[in-house]
Amino acid sequence: MAPTTRVSRLREKQSGDRRLLDGLLDSTPLATVAFIRDGLPVALPIGFARVGDEVVVHGSTGSPWLRELAAGAPVSICVSTLEGVVVARSGFESSFHYRSAVLFGTFQAIGEDEKVRYLEALTDAFIPGRSTELRASTARELAATLVLRLEIGPDNWSLKIGDGWPEDPEEDVAAGVWAGVVPILTSYGAPRRAPDCDEGIPVPASVRAMSGRPVDRRG
Amino acid sequence: MAPTTRVSRLREKQSGDRRLLDGLLDSTPLATVAFIRDGLPVALPIGFARVGDEVVVHGSTGSPWLRELAAGAPVSICVSTLEGVVVARSGFESSFHYRSAVLFGTFQAIGEDEKVRYLEALTDAFIPGRSTELRASTARELAATLVLRLEIGPDNWSLKIGDGWPEDPEEDVAAGVWAGVVPILTSYGAPRRAPDCDEGIPVPASVRAMSGRPVDRRG
Repeated sequence: MAPTTRVSRLREKQSGDRRLLDGLLDSTPLATVAFIRDGLPVALPIGFARVGDEVVVHGSTGSPWLRELAAGAPVSICVSTLEGVVVARSGFESSFHYRSAVLFGTFQAIGEDEKVRYLEALTDAFIPGRSTELRASTARELAATLVLRLEIGPDNWSLKIGDGWPEDPEEDVAAGVWAGVVPILTSYGAPRRAPDCDEGIPVPASVRAMSGRPVDRRG
Repeated sequence: MAPTTRVSRLREKQSGDRRLLDGLLDSTPLATVAFIRDGLPVALPIGFARVGDEVVVHGSTGSPWLRELAAGAPVSICVSTLEGVVVARSGFESSFHYRSAVLFGTFQAIGEDEKVRYLEALTDAFIPGRSTELRASTARELAATLVLRLEIGPDNWSLKIGDGWPEDPEEDVAAGVWAGVVPILTSYGAPRRAPDCDEGIPVPASVRAMSGRPVDRRG
């Protein structure tokens, strides 16, 4: 049986808009992947990127859990951002601004012939433009890296967005307590040079372009 | 069989320090909870707080998944923060600064006699000091709210921290490519007043104390 992608609670916050899904997937490199091991659920974090209609992750060929995923273990992928605190006139109505996506399916390993393209896409998702500043991956590096993709289909995901004002009942509004939203802002700070990096080496364009910018590239 | 909490890869990044675990759990209100439904893994986001030796979540008594958790479904809870991008001299060595914790176990529902205390702890974890600015929860609100706790035991969690510099091989360092870390900064912005909140109502102390501060209270 395919898992349901119908949101049970606060259904008005569910969206079926693929562009909004892509916007969320492109706004953070952090996903949590759940799978089953020895009959129990396991949730682990991993960097990811959307590449077209696929969610792509990578890691060591020596990683037990990535090998389980490559072997076709069913997964659920959760990608969430926290974008504000909704400060209502009661604890009950207080909540968060967030976007969250949940995807279901199985990963497939990327073949040797496509690895370079996918790895460069991951590098450029994490640090836009970086792949052109770097040497090519070596054969040893490629052999040590597992790259996995999961298809974003028409009906294997759900998306929920909370972005409204507090919805306090009339009597709480009348009581004169403050209500509003405190935004949560996530941005890249000033780059820090590695101790083994000569002072004469200029900060590259990729890093200069990130610094001081919101992590969410829509921002 | 209890799930292993031994990290397979990059073991030097694993920590068994409970204070570091608490530091992570107290630095973000967002968790991802994985459970099994119809034989498949499901990962969903939820706000949480650490209350002493417990991870606490809450939601509607009408929420199907929270009811499954209250009934004792095995869970894995993942809490992760992304704190920087490690910009190495190759794609292979590039990575992230992060802290991530994974906890295993089952939730228990909090009884009626303890709900108020736990709900106030949640409110104050999300908005420090807010509970004293608000009216008490009503009997109807308490009846509509499910509060769940999961014990943080001596061996049902693992913690992994990535906070180092790029570890490029000598020949890449010699090639003169820039390397370093771009920090990721997460902070609360200026509060936005709700449209139904009279201009004459001052911004409360709780909200003033958050604004402009890092979300991670250690910061």
